[in-house]
Amino acid sequence: MARAAYLERLPMRHPGDVSEIEAAIDAGTVRPGGLTAILGKTEGNGCVNDFTRAYATQSLRAALVGRLSPEHLAALPMVMSGGVEGGLSPHWLLLHEGEAPKTPGPALAIASRITRDLSPSEIGRIAQARLVREATLEAMAAAEIARPEDVHFVQVKCPLLTAERAAAAGGDVATRDMLRSMGLSRGASALGVAWALGEIGGLEQGRICADVEIWSARASCSAGVELMGCEVVVMGQSEVWSGPLAIKHTVMRDAIDAGAIAALLAEIAPGAPVGDPGPRLRAVLVKAEASKSGRIRGARHTMLEDSDIASTRHARGFVGGLVAGLVGFTEVFVSGGAEHQGPDGGGPVAFIYERENGA
Amino acid sequence: MARAAYLERLPMRHPGDVSEIEAAIDAGTVRPGGLTAILGKTEGNGCVNDFTRAYATQSLRAALVGRLSPEHLAALPMVMSGGVEGGLSPHWLLLHEGEAPKTPGPALAIASRITRDLSPSEIGRIAQARLVREATLEAMAAAEIARPEDVHFVQVKCPLLTAERAAAAGGDVATRDMLRSMGLSRGASALGVAWALGEIGGLEQGRICADVEIWSARASCSAGVELMGCEVVVMGQSEVWSGPLAIKHTVMRDAIDAGAIAALLAEIAPGAPVGDPGPRLRAVLVKAEASKSGRIRGARHTMLEDSDIASTRHARGFVGGLVAGLVGFTEVFVSGGAEHQGPDGGGPVAFIYERENGA
Amino acid sequence: MARAAYLERLPMRHPGDVSEIEAAIDAGTVRPGGLTAILGKTEGNGCVNDFTRAYATQSLRAALVGRLSPEHLAALPMVMSGGVEGGLSPHWLLLHEGEAPKTPGPALAIASRITRDLSPSEIGRIAQARLVREATLEAMAAAEIARPEDVHFVQVKCPLLTAERAAAAGGDVATRDMLRSMGLSRGASALGVAWALGEIGGLEQGRICADVEIWSARASCSAGVELMGCEVVVMGQSEVWSGPLAIKHTVMRDAIDAGAIAALLAEIAPGAPVGDPGPRLRAVLVKAEASKSGRIRGARHTMLEDSDIASTRHARGFVGGLVAGLVGFTEVFVSGGAEHQGPDGGGPVAFIYERENGA
Amino acid sequence: MARAAYLERLPMRHPGDVSEIEAAIDAGTVRPGGLTAILGKTEGNGCVNDFTRAYATQSLRAALVGRLSPEHLAALPMVMSGGVEGGLSPHWLLLHEGEAPKTPGPALAIASRITRDLSPSEIGRIAQARLVREATLEAMAAAEIARPEDVHFVQVKCPLLTAERAAAAGGDVATRDMLRSMGLSRGASALGVAWALGEIGGLEQGRICADVEIWSARASCSAGVELMGCEVVVMGQSEVWSGPLAIKHTVMRDAIDAGAIAALLAEIAPGAPVGDPGPRLRAVLVKAEASKSGRIRGARHTMLEDSDIASTRHARGFVGGLVAGLVGFTEVFVSGGAEHQGPDGGGPVAFIYERENGA
Repeated sequence: MARAAYLERLPMRHPGDVSEIEAAIDAGTVRPGGLTAILGKTEGNGCVNDFTRAYATQSLRAALVGRLSPEHLAALPMVMSGGVEGGLSPHWLLLHEGEAPKTPGPALAIASRITRDLSPSEIGRIAQARLVREATLEAMAAAEIARPEDVHFVQVKCPLLTAERAAAAGGDVATRDMLRSMGLSRGASALGVAWALGEIGGLEQGRICADVEIWSARASCSAGVELMGCEVVVMGQSEVWSGPLAIKHTVMRDAIDAGAIAALLAEIAPGAPVGDPGPRLRAVLVKAEASKSGRIRGARHTMLEDSDIASTRHARGFVGGLVAGLVGFTEVFVSGGAEHQGPDGGGPVAFIYERENGA
Repeated sequence: MARAAYLERLPMRHPGDVSEIEAAIDAGTVRPGGLTAILGKTEGNGCVNDFTRAYATQSLRAALVGRLSPEHLAALPMVMSGGVEGGLSPHWLLLHEGEAPKTPGPALAIASRITRDLSPSEIGRIAQARLVREATLEAMAAAEIARPEDVHFVQVKCPLLTAERAAAAGGDVATRDMLRSMGLSRGASALGVAWALGEIGGLEQGRICADVEIWSARASCSAGVELMGCEVVVMGQSEVWSGPLAIKHTVMRDAIDAGAIAALLAEIAPGAPVGDPGPRLRAVLVKAEASKSGRIRGARHTMLEDSDIASTRHARGFVGGLVAGLVGFTEVFVSGGAEHQGPDGGGPVAFIYERENGA
Repeated sequence: MARAAYLERLPMRHPGDVSEIEAAIDAGTVRPGGLTAILGKTEGNGCVNDFTRAYATQSLRAALVGRLSPEHLAALPMVMSGGVEGGLSPHWLLLHEGEAPKTPGPALAIASRITRDLSPSEIGRIAQARLVREATLEAMAAAEIARPEDVHFVQVKCPLLTAERAAAAGGDVATRDMLRSMGLSRGASALGVAWALGEIGGLEQGRICADVEIWSARASCSAGVELMGCEVVVMGQSEVWSGPLAIKHTVMRDAIDAGAIAALLAEIAPGAPVGDPGPRLRAVLVKAEASKSGRIRGARHTMLEDSDIASTRHARGFVGGLVAGLVGFTEVFVSGGAEHQGPDGGGPVAFIYERENGA
Repeated sequence: MARAAYLERLPMRHPGDVSEIEAAIDAGTVRPGGLTAILGKTEGNGCVNDFTRAYATQSLRAALVGRLSPEHLAALPMVMSGGVEGGLSPHWLLLHEGEAPKTPGPALAIASRITRDLSPSEIGRIAQARLVREATLEAMAAAEIARPEDVHFVQVKCPLLTAERAAAAGGDVATRDMLRSMGLSRGASALGVAWALGEIGGLEQGRICADVEIWSARASCSAGVELMGCEVVVMGQSEVWSGPLAIKHTVMRDAIDAGAIAALLAEIAPGAPVGDPGPRLRAVLVKAEASKSGRIRGARHTMLEDSDIASTRHARGFVGGLVAGLVGFTEVFVSGGAEHQGPDGGGPVAFIYERENGA
């Protein structure tokens, strides 16, 4: 028997609704002891005052506290990402590990690490990138993923700065603007992943959220007020693992890069009609952002100049519509704010899907 | 020589920016006397207090007043539709008529009518539908479109109710809720189009915005505070016309109906890769809305329960992302609020494109 | 010894922050067994998708579950009201009962009741008003408040309709519009209070949210997705009670009725300068709404035509600014949506303050 | 006969509605040749993409072009300030100059200047402050206001940075964040006024929007996309002038400083009841902002952490409610973003009122 990764994609009726998770555990579909990470796409604004993330996390903890050991619960990443703009649908993604007979070829391999709590002064700076780099490398090793190029997605949840935290740090913080601190934190995390995966060789002062030329093709970072450490979930392919699932990734070059999505779908479902890739696709993870250039293929967009709706909300809904249309369902995990996650205005995309020779 | 329809798609730097239109007229690309209709996708919220529409209209009038006869200017539909959520790009669509040698086969034919001003009591009721029906039939005749099935798109701009207008009507109004009045007005207009095109046989009391089973596959209606009449622009195919352009339409069955878009693109650019249909496509007109069922293919959406962002804004950005991705550009005319315009949660789509044997 | 009502006003750092409540209990300031009701002003949007209310409630329950009997916890009203627009400050109000030596004169008397769960079909209709009426009368009796005129404030938390609930009721609902259901539910509750207090003699079909002439001067109702029953907290003056506190109320005639607030303050702090009534004032409860007329003293307001910000949010911040300025602090419990709670555009106000001869 | 300043406060039905201004001119109430400045409180969001300002300005120009000389029109400040949150009412303030018999004592004196267009690199920097300082001094001289302490209000309208403008400056700009550029521009303008009035002795690098200890008690600055110069309107008291009006000012120390407003009202209407100062008060000009400390008198506010509503919108509605309540009407010119305009979280307030011995 080999290690095997499993995934459940479950609906969420509101941010406190963990009933489908409880049902999956009670039915034996998910063995609590095997849980590696829980991702949640919740229906808040995904920005500073999005309390749906903390509410979902609190609800998850209450549901799991009697079903997991305290050590496991403390170490279990719960990556809540707010924002289901447009027709996106709130949902949970449960990644869990079990066993399966070894079949030929690589399969999905997963592992996670949580860094120590950051001080407010570290948020959005090189110190954060370094901690994320280390956690990524440790999770890779734990997942027995042999080479950096076998890593296909690294989901990071990281902290942000509030006025209170900035004051506690005596003002020695990367920014005093809360919304901006979310961007810096995401950016530092992404560069930590890039560093771990060899996409960049190192990181110098002054590059975070300033140099759009350095980025990871596999990092997806979201920031939330509810934690002070960084939760790192590594997903890749490993010959050591078996089981029903595999993972692939691509990079959208801009917000309307349908071709990148279509090409990745064609690897899983060759010849399938547009918008109907069939049942093999199990989860879709996407990063989206408004291009800093203010343009998409030369045409002006207004996302950065809209003072009524945050640009991250615009970007999630817009890219979410394209991806949902192409994959044929709306439970797509689109996360906003793609600083150093793909090129300016684009972002990484990963598909978790059923192996042909799986299970 | 035959009648010929032309189209310019021009960028807009802000809602008052008509410089590209002035330049096109000055360069002789557009003959002012030939103008049939001007559509504008402006960067407001597309809802009740969207003044970008009136601002754009005022700017247009100022630019055209010295270039058109007063009669022509008064009869020229200026259909401003607010909302470029996500990466959509503000732009103008100028439809104008000229001449071209007659070539075989039908070509794009266009004409417009403006109804008399409605009384506040008529807005959103059968009286409005009847007026739109008549204007549609008159515009069809003016465009020499032989059969209802040769009409591929009817763009309507219609009025809404404000508190002042409701009071002026002594309270005899379809609703006192401004946002709701926009929906009723769009719905009544759409059913007027459906009635004219034979998609419905008539219209009874109590059906507007209540019976989701009756709809037009070719109506696109938007409401604005800046007018009291209904502007109706009919676009179709006619054997009488010639010139470089043609039009086709389809209906999205829901907000992620990539298949419908792809199939229509395949008629214009057979075998083209996803997201890159080539240069023949000149304009894209789309309606989008949040499904009243609260679901898309069974998964919950939150558009109708979001009190921070209007559902029309969500829907435009989400559907806009899908369409922009498939056509490869972001100057897509997505209009929100698709009451009786396509099935619940879906909407009509039209492409204006270059004929193979055109010009 | 006599029954005595106590109040703590405590800050909230985020909707899940119950630390000040726990500290007050641990310090013995609040005896858990004496809790009558907990009100919370949370920092959500106060509209349909405000999950800060449920998050705060969940956090409260978790904090209290080990400190209260299950029966007490189940019957304890937790009235979370979202929205701290402008400079309002998130806070808790704990009403609890103890004992004090009987001193002459009436004192604050409090009691609460929770109705049975409503069916979706009952929400916003006479059935709801009747249930709230009964609960109000029962709570009055429990509080030993002798006469209806001795009741100074009745806080009600009531349910709303979601798409799921409407569907569950087979469509037999007062409305299918979620935001509107909040208004109807608040209106029905307020008329239930008015009925109990003799402010109206009864209630006929078709009056809820339609007849602005019928209203309570002492009802304050807010709606939330997190409950299906109505929680009713009655506050008044009773000769049976003693202790340090008393309550008074007034009615703002419109959103800028500074005179009403000033007159009430003058009763507590005669001759105090504007904006500095001194330390006797302990809690302020206010209802605010946008006048349906679209005007305030003849001048147009735009609250009902703003599609970016809900009118309830506008009204809370605006009225909140006035009241906070006059009382000199920002922990003011302003609740939006004042259907049948005071005249059109106005609303009830209550002050809980220290009796001169108290304790 | 002496110079005399006049003021009309006129309602606005929408941002393009100049009908009341046209009527006042046609009725002879306002002599176009005497116009010194026009202020407009329009119903946009007051932030980057608020096009109601440009729309109102365009409408004003169209109304005045046939009634003013081209030179006068070009030099006439039109200070449009977006945002009528809460119950504030959109309105115009026309300041115009005529003649009146000289009566004893000083009277309202007004004059204006417009600086040259700024380059994008100058916006939000010392260069802007220096230009505003010069324009303020020139306008003081033109208004024959003898001493800096006789200046009671200086209204400045200044430009902001857009992505296009930043790009045109080759990136040599104070910020690339549009919303932040509005703050820097307002701050630089305010410090220019403070410098002119001797409230600060000079201005060093790095202080704009960084040092909250330096501020003007009389500057009110708003930024808009529709201009590149700074429009400066000086209002003060002068012995040279006569006529019916006078001006006074105060400073709100924080967002709930009712005492400051009440004290200023008491000078105009001694002994008047709270909220009813009588008919002498003709115009109210106020600055409002969210305190950077995140607190008001020690209690947390959430304005800076709300990603759904800009803090400037919160602040305008909240302070607007207080001021409107105290003055008894809602046509209050509250302008958001008070960088260096009053202390952190507070702001200047000016009243234009009828002199007792006037006219």
